[in-house]
Amino acid sequence: MAALNATHDATRRSWVASANDGQTDFPIQNLPVAVFRRRGSGEALRGGVAIGEQILDLAAAHARGAFSGLAARAASAAAGDTLNALMALGPEAWSALRAALSDALQSGAPQEALLRDALVAQADAEFGLPAHIGDYTDFYTSVHHATNVGRLFRPDNPLLPNYKWVPIGYHGRASSVIVSGQPFHRPIGQSMPAGATAPVVGPSRRLDYELELGIFIGRGNALGERIAMANAESHVFGLCLLNDWSARDIQPWEYQPLGPFLAKNFATTISPWIVTLEALAPYRTAWSRPAGDPEPLPYLDAPTLRSEGAIDIQLEVTLQSARMRESGLAPHRLCRTSYRHAYWTLAQLVTHHTVNGCNLQSGDLLGTGTLSGPTADEMGALLELTAGGKQPVTLPDGEQRTFIEDGDRVALHGHCAAPGFVRLGFGACEATLLPART
Amino acid sequence: MAALNATHDATRRSWVASANDGQTDFPIQNLPVAVFRRRGSGEALRGGVAIGEQILDLAAAHARGAFSGLAARAASAAAGDTLNALMALGPEAWSALRAALSDALQSGAPQEALLRDALVAQADAEFGLPAHIGDYTDFYTSVHHATNVGRLFRPDNPLLPNYKWVPIGYHGRASSVIVSGQPFHRPIGQSMPAGATAPVVGPSRRLDYELELGIFIGRGNALGERIAMANAESHVFGLCLLNDWSARDIQPWEYQPLGPFLAKNFATTISPWIVTLEALAPYRTAWSRPAGDPEPLPYLDAPTLRSEGAIDIQLEVTLQSARMRESGLAPHRLCRTSYRHAYWTLAQLVTHHTVNGCNLQSGDLLGTGTLSGPTADEMGALLELTAGGKQPVTLPDGEQRTFIEDGDRVALHGHCAAPGFVRLGFGACEATLLPART
Repeated sequence: MAALNATHDATRRSWVASANDGQTDFPIQNLPVAVFRRRGSGEALRGGVAIGEQILDLAAAHARGAFSGLAARAASAAAGDTLNALMALGPEAWSALRAALSDALQSGAPQEALLRDALVAQADAEFGLPAHIGDYTDFYTSVHHATNVGRLFRPDNPLLPNYKWVPIGYHGRASSVIVSGQPFHRPIGQSMPAGATAPVVGPSRRLDYELELGIFIGRGNALGERIAMANAESHVFGLCLLNDWSARDIQPWEYQPLGPFLAKNFATTISPWIVTLEALAPYRTAWSRPAGDPEPLPYLDAPTLRSEGAIDIQLEVTLQSARMRESGLAPHRLCRTSYRHAYWTLAQLVTHHTVNGCNLQSGDLLGTGTLSGPTADEMGALLELTAGGKQPVTLPDGEQRTFIEDGDRVALHGHCAAPGFVRLGFGACEATLLPART
Repeated sequence: MAALNATHDATRRSWVASANDGQTDFPIQNLPVAVFRRRGSGEALRGGVAIGEQILDLAAAHARGAFSGLAARAASAAAGDTLNALMALGPEAWSALRAALSDALQSGAPQEALLRDALVAQADAEFGLPAHIGDYTDFYTSVHHATNVGRLFRPDNPLLPNYKWVPIGYHGRASSVIVSGQPFHRPIGQSMPAGATAPVVGPSRRLDYELELGIFIGRGNALGERIAMANAESHVFGLCLLNDWSARDIQPWEYQPLGPFLAKNFATTISPWIVTLEALAPYRTAWSRPAGDPEPLPYLDAPTLRSEGAIDIQLEVTLQSARMRESGLAPHRLCRTSYRHAYWTLAQLVTHHTVNGCNLQSGDLLGTGTLSGPTADEMGALLELTAGGKQPVTLPDGEQRTFIEDGDRVALHGHCAAPGFVRLGFGACEATLLPART
């Protein structure tokens, strides 16, 4: 875990006024990174840092001589159309860039005159994927989600015996990871209706979201080498929001015995901004397991695990139907929870993934799995909220939902707050469902 | 399916004498592509074509003006350190290059003087991965393998109800796909011994191979678009051999409910040479299903499916222990079968993968899954051959194997033959198992 330093100081303010309102996701203490360009400009995509309602263009700032030393090297690595080169530099470089940005963007900084021209309004920007994602792995780190879903299929024995020992994960599809704002079509596929003797093929009728966090790998490991718990977080660049769209009618028919495939690989939406692990340092919190649960095996344990293994990231899901948008109704919140309830930590995911020598690469994406919390209003997917489609939720205009309808816009948001520290957030991870293609 | 043409003519011979011995994998009718350089030279990797015991350096041949038009464009696309650009050009370009190569390498061709200097002996070469693999998907296309493995777990009901309707597949790990000849370490992981109350962590004690073919995607499809059966093969660049190494003790403990993960993602070995679909045209054969099995759903059916959906690729697995190598004993054959037994065809895999709009990209790799045939000597994995480790196989020097031992070298080979056409092959896909790292 990165130590606290001046970049976390809650009294620090920015000469970009919109960063100081106490409500923005992007105060000077956050400084998340994305890949962007001016919307519709045909400009090259390049790295930028959020500050209030603005984006600091890292390539432009670097060209103006705003950085020196390791920070300059990091800014230069962020000038391309993905952040893989920045991710590969490692935590010292990320930290140097963060410190230089915090200094240059703070109120009274002499760099203000230099950098004003390197700002682009977020309202005028469009975003690319922050990295070329070599491999995308999705985990299953919420014991509440695993139990809620397991109960639908096995009421008497909802949790499988491996869950409390193995950070369960599987490989997802990298090519269909898309960035927030990009709509996608309802998938078509095979499903087996109850009582039928042959499957049917058609548009999914049980389309769902999954509230997750995405974890971008910074430095990788060579094939055959393992990453120990003590070093695991130094391999993590940062976190984003992730929606693992899922077709609940395709999944049960196809997933035995090799796991989810077409039920998941048609689209995975991530937020454009990656919040670095260093920015999240003030929101670390204790990690524990219920009494009676096994202790983690030695390779998944560490001295700091229990004191600060978890991160308190407040998460929520909203849904706005096409009719709600036409009526001017605000998105409706379906769920609010926190990442602190995760059964397995960031470091455990990285360490488990590499215990067999599997090589992670810079820009690889890990999903946490659906982050449901312990109570009924903390369920991170409609499958859970509606008890498998049996108990519809009602929207503010009276519409009912068991699963997502065409035109629905689902958005994930996340933020952190802690006594003595500022509020910071992740921006939005949202997409609108288009009808199936015929 | 590509039509037969002059490049398939069995009477055509090459001015590269080693291509004409009737035994080589690489007669002038084959012309597979790889990425290579002179061993230990530090040269750039670049595309080459096998001819007898030689490799024609495509960049060097192109620089000497050996090609024109579309063939020149294809050769130029193969000059880089991966073949993705060549794959993206599509079947017309691949076919033009093949025709030009066949003409230039045939006996009496005026290009001989020009191209003699562009040959590198395969014995002096080392190979790279033929493509940057964006995503690797593994299927389960042998009903015999699915039944043999299912019987070990469910003697009364070996085949799951979805098998005959859904081409079962899952996403594998792209980063750990390695090329033939590269050794790898025995993986470490969790397993749950029979009767134990807690898992153990250590080197896998049930390491296995899986005899598969790999399918390289040529042109991809955009996210949201589907590839119909009629066009599916035009998206396939070619085939290689693939060994999906598997840890049989890690797999049963981790794989519920999301599928194989660390049991598979530590290493997947492929052969360096990609045999194009056009080269395989003479070996197409009828495809059928046992009486009583369901017909493919309409989206997985096509007019030519039954007449030529299958390909008769003869496959074998050999094992040579360290002691056998020291004693000068040849590798021992454990299995011989054919790809023609596959329950699902190439085209069905491509079409099913994209029915939900999932986007394939040039260079993506699909594995067929273990290609066991209908008889006892056609089992493509030790798990099947040894009945789950209960019936050891005996090697020529008296050693016994239930699973792979450190120092064992496993090799896959494949070839095609048909009346009126030459024998051609895939080269070797082999690797030696190193001990676990401590």
